[in-house]
Amino acid sequence: MSDNQQIHLTRRPQGMPQAGDFSFVEAQMPEIGEGQALVRTLYLSVDPYLRGRMSDKKSYVAPFEVGKMLSGGIVGQVEESRTPSLARGDIVTGHLGWQRYAAVTPGQVTKVDPTLAPISTALGVLGMTGLTAYFGLLDIGRPKEGETVVVSGAAGAVGMIVGQIARIKGARAVGIAGSAEKTEYLIRELGFDAAVNYKNDNFREELEKACPQGVDVYFDNVGGEVSDAVLAHLNKGARIPLCGQISMYNLEKPDIGPRIQPQLLINSALMKGFIVGEYAARFGDGVRELAGWLKEDKLKYAENIVDGFENTIEAFLGLFSGENVGKQLVKVAEPR
Amino acid sequence: MSDNQQIHLTRRPQGMPQAGDFSFVEAQMPEIGEGQALVRTLYLSVDPYLRGRMSDKKSYVAPFEVGKMLSGGIVGQVEESRTPSLARGDIVTGHLGWQRYAAVTPGQVTKVDPTLAPISTALGVLGMTGLTAYFGLLDIGRPKEGETVVVSGAAGAVGMIVGQIARIKGARAVGIAGSAEKTEYLIRELGFDAAVNYKNDNFREELEKACPQGVDVYFDNVGGEVSDAVLAHLNKGARIPLCGQISMYNLEKPDIGPRIQPQLLINSALMKGFIVGEYAARFGDGVRELAGWLKEDKLKYAENIVDGFENTIEAFLGLFSGENVGKQLVKVAEPR
Repeated sequence: MSDNQQIHLTRRPQGMPQAGDFSFVEAQMPEIGEGQALVRTLYLSVDPYLRGRMSDKKSYVAPFEVGKMLSGGIVGQVEESRTPSLARGDIVTGHLGWQRYAAVTPGQVTKVDPTLAPISTALGVLGMTGLTAYFGLLDIGRPKEGETVVVSGAAGAVGMIVGQIARIKGARAVGIAGSAEKTEYLIRELGFDAAVNYKNDNFREELEKACPQGVDVYFDNVGGEVSDAVLAHLNKGARIPLCGQISMYNLEKPDIGPRIQPQLLINSALMKGFIVGEYAARFGDGVRELAGWLKEDKLKYAENIVDGFENTIEAFLGLFSGENVGKQLVKVAEPR
Repeated sequence: MSDNQQIHLTRRPQGMPQAGDFSFVEAQMPEIGEGQALVRTLYLSVDPYLRGRMSDKKSYVAPFEVGKMLSGGIVGQVEESRTPSLARGDIVTGHLGWQRYAAVTPGQVTKVDPTLAPISTALGVLGMTGLTAYFGLLDIGRPKEGETVVVSGAAGAVGMIVGQIARIKGARAVGIAGSAEKTEYLIRELGFDAAVNYKNDNFREELEKACPQGVDVYFDNVGGEVSDAVLAHLNKGARIPLCGQISMYNLEKPDIGPRIQPQLLINSALMKGFIVGEYAARFGDGVRELAGWLKEDKLKYAENIVDGFENTIEAFLGLFSGENVGKQLVKVAEPR
């Protein structure tokens, strides 16, 4: 066995990704030059949006290259340093390659304060996931006290934080998820006011019952027919942050559905796509407020941690089966 | 013949409205009480959005009632007054019934300055039409110098003003209309940078050629397949004011098309429905700026005036045949 291992994209997935689209490649231990540090991967984040980068369609980030290493959010530990900015033992996070070891410059990573919360949260509630929920909901959704906020993919990493922030802001939180266990969990554990299972035959009626005052904010993680159902209940002046369209990611051609413009028009509603990177200048404020809510126990999070680098692909594929609750992570190694 | 005539809604149109959905009703001359004035209708505005009010579906305004008088934008002249706020001879505008004479209170109408521009413009470029273009484009579309603004229904009353304001703001204006005469007119007479006929077989290619830098703002008056074609060329951060969906108004069930959320998502694009009434507090500013552009000859307008109250329904139905250029008005009487 070699010192390092990487995960490469072997071919572009057609429709639903399969294990054969990826390969594990033995690699040399990276050598660090002056000004660099060697980081050992501890946690690796698998996220639905990565599916988009595996296609060569235009998207909000450049596609991965076939035959090259994949990348994503990583939490790691500095093993060796040739820069004064990083010390051996430091915990850091950044967008890095899917490999066991990486040579990084200080600009590629951010230090993680391990006293604030478990370090894995730097990939979840205190990282891109939490910030995506925070900025999408507060900047585009702008929920007001007493309004109804509906979130799809509510048991997912972003969705569960959206609903809780909606509650913190005094709004009514209604989650949409894909099993009775998940809807139970949202209501019992996370304090959602209501939650509806989109796989139920009477989903549309249940949704209507869960939103007796209509829908003021719809935070959309999934798209497709679930969203069609929500858009039928928009209130005047509704806001719709478009965060993801997971139901679309594995389709081979554009999906067809009822046109939504008439609904937006008659309600003077706003729909806006976003990516969290657009809010980079305000990340510090976001993390501070999220950490405060965690500390006050107003905000809970859930992680689903798969053990072992070798199980990364399985963890990624699992995102599309609708089974996971909360943030999906892979634990690659223990901190020393 | 009686003193007054009104137009009533006889039954709700199914699909495309027909002459038989309306009736002319003889009525008494309205009697004015203390604090009222008698207004004689001079011009009457027929607009596509009225179709929505003829259905009992939820829309942004309450539906018309069957068996009752229709209403819309009117320019009229005060014939007799029992209020100090209005004098005999004054020209006024307001949302009033479709009839030859009305009893009004001063709060229902606004005085029109006949020295500013022809009084019919109070229903067009200096009225709701111009203000719809002005606020939708500038408040939601926010075109910047050098950007590309595409407008559908470009030869319509709102569309032609949108394109000209885009040019005033230093943007490239691309119009979409339904005949070669219209596209010629937009380019030659109104100074659009390009115009494309959506009825041409190679519409999609012509549109792409007309927007070599992509689309930054799409002011949508029509919806349907025309909009599908435009949305394929959105730039990052595009803005889409939804003003109308004329292609949908006469459909009996929701139209189906490719889902647009993925396009909005990957471009972080914003789509927002609006009605001009939301900007009522700023109407004064809008009219002042529009009137200034008219005076400086930066803004042209076109009116299509049908003569005679008895031809009102014909003029309204003509809106949906795609023949008209500019603002469709009915001239009911001459000012005295």
